[in-house]
Amino acid sequence: MTIAPPAPTVFETRESEVRSYCRNWPVVFDKAQGSHLFDEDGRAYLDFFAGAGALNYGHNNPLLKRALLEYLERDGITHSLDMASTAKRTFLETFERLILEPRGLDYKVQFPGPTGTNAVESALKLARKVKGRESVVSFTNAFHGMSLGSLAVTGNSMKRAGAGIPLVHGTPMPFDNYLDGRTPDFLWFERLLEDSGSGLNHPAAVIVETVQGEGGVNVARAEWLRKLAQLCVRRDMLLIVDDVQMGCGRTGGFFSFEEAGITPDIVCLSKSIGGYGMPMSLTLLKPELDVWEPGEHNGTFRGHNPSFVTSAAALDAYWADDQLEKQTLLKGQQVEAALAAVAAESAGLGGSYRGRGLIWGLAFPDNERAGAICKRAFELGVLLETSGPESEVVKLIPALTITPDELDEGLAVLGRAVRETA
Amino acid sequence: MTIAPPAPTVFETRESEVRSYCRNWPVVFDKAQGSHLFDEDGRAYLDFFAGAGALNYGHNNPLLKRALLEYLERDGITHSLDMASTAKRTFLETFERLILEPRGLDYKVQFPGPTGTNAVESALKLARKVKGRESVVSFTNAFHGMSLGSLAVTGNSMKRAGAGIPLVHGTPMPFDNYLDGRTPDFLWFERLLEDSGSGLNHPAAVIVETVQGEGGVNVARAEWLRKLAQLCVRRDMLLIVDDVQMGCGRTGGFFSFEEAGITPDIVCLSKSIGGYGMPMSLTLLKPELDVWEPGEHNGTFRGHNPSFVTSAAALDAYWADDQLEKQTLLKGQQVEAALAAVAAESAGLGGSYRGRGLIWGLAFPDNERAGAICKRAFELGVLLETSGPESEVVKLIPALTITPDELDEGLAVLGRAVRETA
Amino acid sequence: MTIAPPAPTVFETRESEVRSYCRNWPVVFDKAQGSHLFDEDGRAYLDFFAGAGALNYGHNNPLLKRALLEYLERDGITHSLDMASTAKRTFLETFERLILEPRGLDYKVQFPGPTGTNAVESALKLARKVKGRESVVSFTNAFHGMSLGSLAVTGNSMKRAGAGIPLVHGTPMPFDNYLDGRTPDFLWFERLLEDSGSGLNHPAAVIVETVQGEGGVNVARAEWLRKLAQLCVRRDMLLIVDDVQMGCGRTGGFFSFEEAGITPDIVCLSKSIGGYGMPMSLTLLKPELDVWEPGEHNGTFRGHNPSFVTSAAALDAYWADDQLEKQTLLKGQQVEAALAAVAAESAGLGGSYRGRGLIWGLAFPDNERAGAICKRAFELGVLLETSGPESEVVKLIPALTITPDELDEGLAVLGRAVRETA
Amino acid sequence: MTIAPPAPTVFETRESEVRSYCRNWPVVFDKAQGSHLFDEDGRAYLDFFAGAGALNYGHNNPLLKRALLEYLERDGITHSLDMASTAKRTFLETFERLILEPRGLDYKVQFPGPTGTNAVESALKLARKVKGRESVVSFTNAFHGMSLGSLAVTGNSMKRAGAGIPLVHGTPMPFDNYLDGRTPDFLWFERLLEDSGSGLNHPAAVIVETVQGEGGVNVARAEWLRKLAQLCVRRDMLLIVDDVQMGCGRTGGFFSFEEAGITPDIVCLSKSIGGYGMPMSLTLLKPELDVWEPGEHNGTFRGHNPSFVTSAAALDAYWADDQLEKQTLLKGQQVEAALAAVAAESAGLGGSYRGRGLIWGLAFPDNERAGAICKRAFELGVLLETSGPESEVVKLIPALTITPDELDEGLAVLGRAVRETA
Repeated sequence: MTIAPPAPTVFETRESEVRSYCRNWPVVFDKAQGSHLFDEDGRAYLDFFAGAGALNYGHNNPLLKRALLEYLERDGITHSLDMASTAKRTFLETFERLILEPRGLDYKVQFPGPTGTNAVESALKLARKVKGRESVVSFTNAFHGMSLGSLAVTGNSMKRAGAGIPLVHGTPMPFDNYLDGRTPDFLWFERLLEDSGSGLNHPAAVIVETVQGEGGVNVARAEWLRKLAQLCVRRDMLLIVDDVQMGCGRTGGFFSFEEAGITPDIVCLSKSIGGYGMPMSLTLLKPELDVWEPGEHNGTFRGHNPSFVTSAAALDAYWADDQLEKQTLLKGQQVEAALAAVAAESAGLGGSYRGRGLIWGLAFPDNERAGAICKRAFELGVLLETSGPESEVVKLIPALTITPDELDEGLAVLGRAVRETA
Repeated sequence: MTIAPPAPTVFETRESEVRSYCRNWPVVFDKAQGSHLFDEDGRAYLDFFAGAGALNYGHNNPLLKRALLEYLERDGITHSLDMASTAKRTFLETFERLILEPRGLDYKVQFPGPTGTNAVESALKLARKVKGRESVVSFTNAFHGMSLGSLAVTGNSMKRAGAGIPLVHGTPMPFDNYLDGRTPDFLWFERLLEDSGSGLNHPAAVIVETVQGEGGVNVARAEWLRKLAQLCVRRDMLLIVDDVQMGCGRTGGFFSFEEAGITPDIVCLSKSIGGYGMPMSLTLLKPELDVWEPGEHNGTFRGHNPSFVTSAAALDAYWADDQLEKQTLLKGQQVEAALAAVAAESAGLGGSYRGRGLIWGLAFPDNERAGAICKRAFELGVLLETSGPESEVVKLIPALTITPDELDEGLAVLGRAVRETA
Repeated sequence: MTIAPPAPTVFETRESEVRSYCRNWPVVFDKAQGSHLFDEDGRAYLDFFAGAGALNYGHNNPLLKRALLEYLERDGITHSLDMASTAKRTFLETFERLILEPRGLDYKVQFPGPTGTNAVESALKLARKVKGRESVVSFTNAFHGMSLGSLAVTGNSMKRAGAGIPLVHGTPMPFDNYLDGRTPDFLWFERLLEDSGSGLNHPAAVIVETVQGEGGVNVARAEWLRKLAQLCVRRDMLLIVDDVQMGCGRTGGFFSFEEAGITPDIVCLSKSIGGYGMPMSLTLLKPELDVWEPGEHNGTFRGHNPSFVTSAAALDAYWADDQLEKQTLLKGQQVEAALAAVAAESAGLGGSYRGRGLIWGLAFPDNERAGAICKRAFELGVLLETSGPESEVVKLIPALTITPDELDEGLAVLGRAVRETA
Repeated sequence: MTIAPPAPTVFETRESEVRSYCRNWPVVFDKAQGSHLFDEDGRAYLDFFAGAGALNYGHNNPLLKRALLEYLERDGITHSLDMASTAKRTFLETFERLILEPRGLDYKVQFPGPTGTNAVESALKLARKVKGRESVVSFTNAFHGMSLGSLAVTGNSMKRAGAGIPLVHGTPMPFDNYLDGRTPDFLWFERLLEDSGSGLNHPAAVIVETVQGEGGVNVARAEWLRKLAQLCVRRDMLLIVDDVQMGCGRTGGFFSFEEAGITPDIVCLSKSIGGYGMPMSLTLLKPELDVWEPGEHNGTFRGHNPSFVTSAAALDAYWADDQLEKQTLLKGQQVEAALAAVAAESAGLGGSYRGRGLIWGLAFPDNERAGAICKRAFELGVLLETSGPESEVVKLIPALTITPDELDEGLAVLGRAVRETA
């Protein structure tokens, strides 16, 4: 008697080979709530991944869900391009009141389309238009998106190769702590800028992530960010902070750059800004940079009102006081302690960890180890992904609303996975 | 006694100058249903604009709304990147069963991110990768999107200038009927291709809209599209049809290219594919072109399950038989007849019209007239936008689900607006 | 008894595979005089090729030779970059007196380096700097040189492929008579320029050859050139005439554009401007365009005094009156009559001819025929090269100083070669 | 009584503003011999500039002059494109016998056109073709030429701005000793190459000068060059040495890279290779790289036989033994000693010097000083130019054939000029 192999699924027969996450987590998800996903067989998975940062408030957060359902029930307008709508007004007023004003920030708000790469594309376009220069400096292991403008300032060589054209107008500089630990910060960058014979095209802007999530959980020090901001002023370059993954409280404060005390010229937000896993993104710009012509940048889904509704609801629920920020930092300490224990316990593997707020990375000299750990964690019911150019870092990015108990549970599974794959 | 001017709104103080539609329609929309929008004062507007083609099934279509609310209520997973989910499976199976199989089309499906420009970017990347060439041919007055890859094949000079870099690797060719009406189709394009001294970089692909919506409602003849498809085969170029605005039944059949009997190598869908004004887009590719590496193109919102739900619901509701297609064509005849009457009545203005299915354009020699007509129509309660490089065309793009009476009502207002602005 | 094959020559063992002319004319040349070359065995070859236009005054012209030898004998400075020298002064004064002033032309003179491509590169750089735009329009089958700037506006696909990068910022337009003979001149080009949605980046300049020598001896009509000049004025583009091959009397007048009565904004001269086959080139620019910074473009051999000496001697000998121009036109008639006879005699082969002044082309529907004719002509002692994208045109470009008898002799050989390869 | 200002010269009225050397040395040169130039009033100038390296054997060297005159007298063919000629054969055989074979070098020889930038353009094209990649790494303060390909790898920002387009496909890396003196060599470059997430497009090639003449007389250590060569092998990049200014004995050996014991993949030669200030250049390539198609790179003056004649004569006269090399090194010591004395004497000015063979630089913290010194030296009858991005370096580059007495004389003038401008 022969056993027929299972018939291929529609994902295998019909979806493009470009699919990726479904290869590591080969189940079919059906429901989700808070920090748990459930597959179609009802098995639960603890989420230490949070939609790659798009689910800071957890899956299907009931506070936001209620607002969303009410809006949809009453036939609030869904799709409105960049027409004025009551939902958009509420969002703008809430964002102004709870985010901008308390932080003394005076940004104009652009809705560039619903994805992070839309925000980055519009930021780069605007910077180039304002400065009249084409070149942009990015950093090693940066990730800014997959459309051509964003991809040109992204580091990953496999993704760059997908462009099919040579990616130009971008120059990488070393991110914080990239070199040997002894080279002074910005030695090379500033030398290039000050030397009229260096061959560097004078950049219109510098684009930076304060913590590189995709690039391997590389954390820039506040001092490094301050020096970068000063360099931008000194050398007439705009500073763009891509806070798509690190914004919306991931590192504690709403913006990840608050801790460094800097004020970027342009800020990109997406992922968790929609609050419910809803597509939304913002480009924030200093008022004096708002030289856009009406319609000079547009996009069909730049006015998706359900996202405005869940976004405003999330701001109301989580950013009217400093409780979330405090808890995020406390949970970060909980993670750090656990990682310290894991690293100590597995000292022979040479593990090291780094992070800030609720974004942490655990790396080993053996590049293959991170993948093995994540695979084992999945078998044990925890979703963890790798990051870094060689997928060599285990990345911990749980929802900010995860409970301390859930956090403990997941960290325990991580420790077990490390042990069992050693 | 002095009257204080009204305080500026939060849109004026806080939103970027890039906003555009809200300038022509200076009210705040609150609710919507079917072919009507309602502002916050309860005034109704008849919609001849349909979210620029994103609302083919009308606003907040009750059939789709029910499916969406049920999914949200039961905590179906919202955000899942490219993990497998039950909602995605249902979408894929429905799309295969109702769209691909009946048309004999064997496309792999890529979820490139939720916007049209994501679909175009991935199509261009894939074509370049497959052919190993950088150049892409587009057409005069094409519109493909605002990120750098898509913008480079878009015609509008104001939008191109926003790039801040010279846009390269794209070459425009004349769209159907662009020249003097006597020049043979593709004379210039084919001559360039056949002549090894022409200086044209051999294109990897040609990207085309069957009807240029943003470009002025320019309708390509079926014969022209067939000749183009043949030229692509003969000269080893991939044919990409950008069906973002004209797909999902806008011209009658689900795909706008069906009428011509051609099978593009790659198809871009977005706007109405989500069915409810929900952000979603697809890149369809012939199986032999599916050379993507896993994760070579990605994006945070490429797996937005509420969109899969409304999309599948829309396919079920409208594409299980040919009723929608037939009605669209009938309504198109209704529009055509009305436009003929308008043009005849206002013969002195030199008006002309063109269109296909439920996308129509009305143009006048005086480029300013279209704007004036749309402004007057808005005062009379109908939303109409202009298109074309000089905004010289009144564009009629109502929901496919508009009733014949609503259609009559709007066409009557259009006629009145033409008369009153003559 | 076996015969050993001849040992490979140093050209075969040591010179790069890029060498080309030596493959068609496999002898070693030693001496040259007037319209004859002599190989090392003393065999004479009648020259209908004239160094691809660099030898308009024949090989080692005795009038120029005397001036050159005197200068070298007396240790006149040879190499002086762009220092002032007596030889350069004499050249400038002579050029002003005999060329510019009689024609009412007020050009500034730039010495951009000694080759044609240096002249083209500097012309393109200047045009882009003046207009602040990157794009340049060139024509199908244009040839402007092999460095990257010039190559990007050159048509030949094999040569373009040698760049190893995608060549951008150039767009080809149809040269005169390129299409079907019924399409109005500049229909496409002007439509692109007038339509703000066309997708054409507004060009800084148009670069054109009045007769495309390398491209197949394609002759632009004077009327076409005038329309082009008017289009450039109307649409704010600089007109660059690349007169590298067609200047210095090749078409009769000193500049090939004189006949059309136009005054280009920038003119490139090289090849015969040195007068003796000496490396030299000029970029002529209208005074108001002279926005160069000192040293912004430079080059080691831009001040090669022996070239100034032979150039000035050639101007004195041949351009103080109109004798050369008249004789060139007469000899052109002699060529034309002979080609008419050849074409008539070989009517069955479908030959056609075209030309102007002393540049003529003879083409056949069978692309291989031209190469066969040139090969046979070489065996019969006449140097003729092919041109055109498929090397399908026999190109006649004898020295302007060729005698009528020599011309007859060569034309007779051509006729015989046509017959013998039919 | 008023004195009329002198009438402007033809250089001022007719030559482009781009002219530069003539501004610093405002006399009209007429004759030259050995290390002296003579202006039209008969005043002699001692030459410490040597045509920017094009006159290594002095002006109008009598050994070469005799060969040149003989060749011209006997009507040796002057202009022959890339036909085979006896003069070219003699050059190739001599170059093979005296240069390549004794050094164990097996290079194919390409004649890419007569200027340095032609050689660089062809080297870059070939490297890109061989590797199928576009990117090239150059170094800070590099100078490789003014056509677009070469300019993109040149550092000077003023010259780069002249391009009028953004210069892409090149990335600058720090030249030897560019940073703080503590950063390990190639730390940054190698890190970028080894990290697949760095964002550096993998270069096809690295192009380097062993001593940067235009860039400020920056001398790379032999060890640094060896590490670079090893890096190129390790990371699959071709190594191109641009020996246009430093080759032909300038640093002692014929090639400047001999001292380091490396063998570049491609070598660019020009300037002194023609031997008499005659335009000529070579691209040397390893045989396995010779993938050129016939005619894929060409140029009208790539076969200028008088240059072949003087070049071969120079090789015969100076490179049949090691006398020139030894004397160059001795004269270098003479210069070094004098510069040490100048620096010591003017210690308060903070002067420093560096060099190798017969190329030396003298720099001061006050960037303006170098120009003042050269101006004073000119008044005292010695030609010295500045180099470096801010023209802050006095550059000493006399003919290799300068006599020790002439060298002493010029060095004494330099010392006086330093004193008198202190």
